[in-house]
Amino acid sequence: MIILLMYLIAITAEAMTAALAAGRRDMDWIGVCIIACITALGGGSVRDVLLGHYPLTWVKHPEYLWMTAGAAIITALIAPVMRRLHSLFLLLDAMGLVVFTVIGCQIGMEMELPITIVLLSGMITGCAGGVLRDVLCNDIPLLLRKEMYASVSMLTGALYLGALHLELNENVAVLGPMAIGLCFRMLALRYNWQMPRFVYRDEWR
Amino acid sequence: MIILLMYLIAITAEAMTAALAAGRRDMDWIGVCIIACITALGGGSVRDVLLGHYPLTWVKHPEYLWMTAGAAIITALIAPVMRRLHSLFLLLDAMGLVVFTVIGCQIGMEMELPITIVLLSGMITGCAGGVLRDVLCNDIPLLLRKEMYASVSMLTGALYLGALHLELNENVAVLGPMAIGLCFRMLALRYNWQMPRFVYRDEWR
Amino acid sequence: MIILLMYLIAITAEAMTAALAAGRRDMDWIGVCIIACITALGGGSVRDVLLGHYPLTWVKHPEYLWMTAGAAIITALIAPVMRRLHSLFLLLDAMGLVVFTVIGCQIGMEMELPITIVLLSGMITGCAGGVLRDVLCNDIPLLLRKEMYASVSMLTGALYLGALHLELNENVAVLGPMAIGLCFRMLALRYNWQMPRFVYRDEWR
Repeated sequence: MIILLMYLIAITAEAMTAALAAGRRDMDWIGVCIIACITALGGGSVRDVLLGHYPLTWVKHPEYLWMTAGAAIITALIAPVMRRLHSLFLLLDAMGLVVFTVIGCQIGMEMELPITIVLLSGMITGCAGGVLRDVLCNDIPLLLRKEMYASVSMLTGALYLGALHLELNENVAVLGPMAIGLCFRMLALRYNWQMPRFVYRDEWR
Repeated sequence: MIILLMYLIAITAEAMTAALAAGRRDMDWIGVCIIACITALGGGSVRDVLLGHYPLTWVKHPEYLWMTAGAAIITALIAPVMRRLHSLFLLLDAMGLVVFTVIGCQIGMEMELPITIVLLSGMITGCAGGVLRDVLCNDIPLLLRKEMYASVSMLTGALYLGALHLELNENVAVLGPMAIGLCFRMLALRYNWQMPRFVYRDEWR
Repeated sequence: MIILLMYLIAITAEAMTAALAAGRRDMDWIGVCIIACITALGGGSVRDVLLGHYPLTWVKHPEYLWMTAGAAIITALIAPVMRRLHSLFLLLDAMGLVVFTVIGCQIGMEMELPITIVLLSGMITGCAGGVLRDVLCNDIPLLLRKEMYASVSMLTGALYLGALHLELNENVAVLGPMAIGLCFRMLALRYNWQMPRFVYRDEWR
């Protein structure tokens, strides 16, 4: 129940940040709604398509599409106010990441997949929406370059699986890793933590 | 029957406009064929993958692949003549959009999906091929930025579903919305109608 | 058996060249691993999703993910040495292309698909990983522009299907076309063979 509520907040938050990204590229209103839906629901869709887990979430719950599109339009209407809410957004976005990750892991476990794939299912759910957004906006996905987005997702998923393995109380197993992942993400943003980069220059090819 | 004929004209037209787009980026002949196939058949493929509707059209009808690849090569051969046929192309391209949309809605209804998803199935069929083309050509998809492409698709689909709901004669229900969508698209091109854009500038993130 | 061994060498080689591509774009270590996995396993994944052939290879064999990610990290660690191994890499990369193509054709035949789709299944398996890599790295896919990558894949697949049709000894039917495809690719690289390009310039649209 609480995880459904957090999921709804998370897709709304993702839709709103995606709408701002679309606004930065002068998209029209329909484009804003499309980018918002793809960012918010795309991670889960990529996961479901790769795992053959049909029907997709938004096919079963079309109301999520209306919710994300609505959130995107409201965001476009009140964009000037958004600037003031910058920190709130970063928090909601980070919450989306950890909630999506845990939900993705749960679906991987329901399908009785190997542990590597369960973890990956969480990472895909958490991260793929943002990658699709960046590809459609014609950027190199942020995920691949910085911000520890994938690392936070991997950490959250690993902690969650570890907690389940230790047979902790279910609420602890869900909320604990999410809280740790959230803190880690906010600290990473605050202190600008980055993974080491691999920089390679050559002439051939 | 008539819808199959229109479908074949539509995929041919999409293949030809895609070939011209590939030529603008100096692709080689195989690249031109690939882009043509992806543009013409990609919308339906994205829809089928998302809805879990297997096998895909071109797996069942491989002859469509030869048709689109052939149309692309012919286009490349007679490209100089194409310039004169500009208006014809825009018309065929618009026809493709509305035909694909209606076919997509029909498949959504066959699968007994919710009404929102039926409409979306039409939009994905109509629009996703062009988005794939733009992503592979390394552009921000035109769809997201202007030209009312998605709007025309949404309008056509909504009129079609409305006509079915009113239990109109089937030919009317299919051809009427397609004709209206086509006119709307041609008027939008002629008078350069655009959806309002959402322009947002900030420094953070 | 020998084809499994060649497959493992091929995904390792693809992962290593992808890691170098990621390094050229200053990706972080996780980005390098992700790009490597997508390049090495993406072609087969695209094929499986399009053909509805579940579960995907890496879902059934998660160890391939560790292998490719491990190969990518090792590549990043010993990148300076890589420069010396340039020719070896080109050879391994070409081997990957032909091995993937033959495996893709085999899966198409197992699914009893039409001959066009069997050939296409081979081409998708051979080429789609590199296309995904280029899209994520924000390039126009190399495949579409030069290097005869797709042509080599098509040739290898056609020779393989022809050899099967002639009921040649199985080893000959597998290894012969792969050897010819490999030679063709190396010759194309050596003498800079290119497909003719389609260059088109206009002002409209």
